[in-house]
Amino acid sequence: MYLTIKQEILKNGISTVERISQKILSLPILQNVLVKGEGNFLNLSTTNLELGIKWWALAKVESEGQITVPTRLFSDIINFLPNKIIKLEKKDSTLNIECENYRTSLFGQAAEEFPIIPISKEGEKISLNSQKLCQGLSQVVDISSPSVARPEISGIYHCFQNNLIKIAATDSFRLAEKKLFQKTLLSKEFALILPRLTAKEVVNIFGEKESELQIYFSPNQILFESQMTEIPHPAIQITSKLIEGEYPNYEAIIPKKYETQIILSKAEFLNQIKSASLFSGKINEVSFKINPQKGEVEINSQNPELGKYQSSLPAKIKGKGVEISFNHRFLADGLFQIKTSEVIFELTGEEGPAVLKPLGDESYLYVVMPIKAS
Amino acid sequence: MYLTIKQEILKNGISTVERISQKILSLPILQNVLVKGEGNFLNLSTTNLELGIKWWALAKVESEGQITVPTRLFSDIINFLPNKIIKLEKKDSTLNIECENYRTSLFGQAAEEFPIIPISKEGEKISLNSQKLCQGLSQVVDISSPSVARPEISGIYHCFQNNLIKIAATDSFRLAEKKLFQKTLLSKEFALILPRLTAKEVVNIFGEKESELQIYFSPNQILFESQMTEIPHPAIQITSKLIEGEYPNYEAIIPKKYETQIILSKAEFLNQIKSASLFSGKINEVSFKINPQKGEVEINSQNPELGKYQSSLPAKIKGKGVEISFNHRFLADGLFQIKTSEVIFELTGEEGPAVLKPLGDESYLYVVMPIKAS
Repeated sequence: MYLTIKQEILKNGISTVERISQKILSLPILQNVLVKGEGNFLNLSTTNLELGIKWWALAKVESEGQITVPTRLFSDIINFLPNKIIKLEKKDSTLNIECENYRTSLFGQAAEEFPIIPISKEGEKISLNSQKLCQGLSQVVDISSPSVARPEISGIYHCFQNNLIKIAATDSFRLAEKKLFQKTLLSKEFALILPRLTAKEVVNIFGEKESELQIYFSPNQILFESQMTEIPHPAIQITSKLIEGEYPNYEAIIPKKYETQIILSKAEFLNQIKSASLFSGKINEVSFKINPQKGEVEINSQNPELGKYQSSLPAKIKGKGVEISFNHRFLADGLFQIKTSEVIFELTGEEGPAVLKPLGDESYLYVVMPIKAS
Repeated sequence: MYLTIKQEILKNGISTVERISQKILSLPILQNVLVKGEGNFLNLSTTNLELGIKWWALAKVESEGQITVPTRLFSDIINFLPNKIIKLEKKDSTLNIECENYRTSLFGQAAEEFPIIPISKEGEKISLNSQKLCQGLSQVVDISSPSVARPEISGIYHCFQNNLIKIAATDSFRLAEKKLFQKTLLSKEFALILPRLTAKEVVNIFGEKESELQIYFSPNQILFESQMTEIPHPAIQITSKLIEGEYPNYEAIIPKKYETQIILSKAEFLNQIKSASLFSGKINEVSFKINPQKGEVEINSQNPELGKYQSSLPAKIKGKGVEISFNHRFLADGLFQIKTSEVIFELTGEEGPAVLKPLGDESYLYVVMPIKAS
């Protein structure tokens, strides 16, 4: 292999693929990146066996070939180089990297030993704006539970119904759901569970730049693909196994009606919850007194060793007054995902589920259970 | 005690004093801040017994008094409050903090139990521009060794000779020296060793804003004082014990002449050293070939498991060619403290000390020992 490519392009490529490359004692080659010169392209690939990322860019390939080298070291070297033309040359099991007055030789491992997840474009396919998808995913992904005991809730649920996509995540204490729309007519309704790490990589890789993503579904695998702007050729592919199992019927938990509806300033509500959290105890309890007459939410917390806290903020309140307690972290997590300046907070009694929603945006909701009065 | 003060002023005060407040099991009150209303002032004090910080601001004091409360919690509360008038009120052993619709009660400890380092203004006194002093201190402080085995080199050496102040630090592998000038005529030459933490706090507290610092020296103690702009009253005082012992005669280590003098680009030199460091082994060795004929410095490193690195950069070279190795971290630390775009690098043979200096600035130098050829 012998090829040349500009430093800033290669730097972009290695930063796209590098995060999933991990040191695994039983299969050390997984900490490597596969560097391949083929046709008019440089192709970089990494995998953790569950998930594979491939990246291509146009390059001047004088001779084809491939090799794997340690991902982190390769990335560090490329990042230190000036933004000039880089030469990549494979010599036996070494990758030579040259750029102006810098010359590096990197010991590699044969490309043939590198595991490649096969790409399938069978099955259903949709097309989706990358930023819309990533914004939606990022609003739910951190709610999913990293637990291995219940693998199905460790992932992000996707349900496709005609042009509607429902994305949901839960850790059994709270639940977030985002609705997206797409244009393709699907032949049937279906659902899948995307691993948490895959969702995070999709957000990292496709979230920054607006592009049209093609998504291909086969029974146990999903493929996200973006195209080059210059020519019809894939730019980035993320392929991932799906999580098997039945996702809990989360929609049953979403309250159909409220007893109390509160509309308040998101920033001020969040600030008061965080202040109150300074005095909350081990169970993170902060309590709320909803006063429809005064149009006010009062926030209280106390700690026998530190002291006590009280604050209040004005709110538009419909329905019953109530006193209710929440884990402040769960409330703050939900508020953090709401992007509007005002938030709707709906309660169904002091022991029923509560809902947070952006005011004027029906596409997102966050359900959280109160702390039961002891 | 009952007083009012604006949130942004109090926030500035607590951020000035809070860093040295630490949890110490044998004396838990040291994690508290002393809050005192006296005359027209709010005064905050913290100490770790070695070092004390006092801060004052004008406040509307309705009744005088004092109390200590946990520093971190007090700081967090003040930071969450809106930028409005804060009321501080002592009730028995509780400090009530009110600001608009926020009300907090903080359990405290009696002010009488709080240890206060006595302030002395006896002895010599000088006046110095705060930013000049802090810039100088920050160029040497990180070189001092945090070692407890040799307490004298854990501090920053200061030597006062007429209007010249020499500030030096070493960890026995490298040495940094900065020269400053001041206007006061001193009655005699003297020297002192300032604890590392005190130097860091002086830089943190007085480094940002230009002011005139008064510095008072007594045999075992130093006092840094800044004044309020509104009225002649101290704004901040840092008082610290000094380290006893004899500082090593570091000037004997500074080479009087060089065998090779190299002038090169600081940014490019640093970038190549950091790139080379990717292949350096456990002793951080990176080697340099100085070629006066080619006007070039070649940088090499290699690692039997990873590969090898070579780069070069143009340089103005006087004197002998030489091959020499350094610990890359020690070189990078020195280069990082040099603020000019070009740096002078002087060598005295492959085993003698090397010196880094900013080009055109005689006030700073950094001495580093090479790694001996094995």
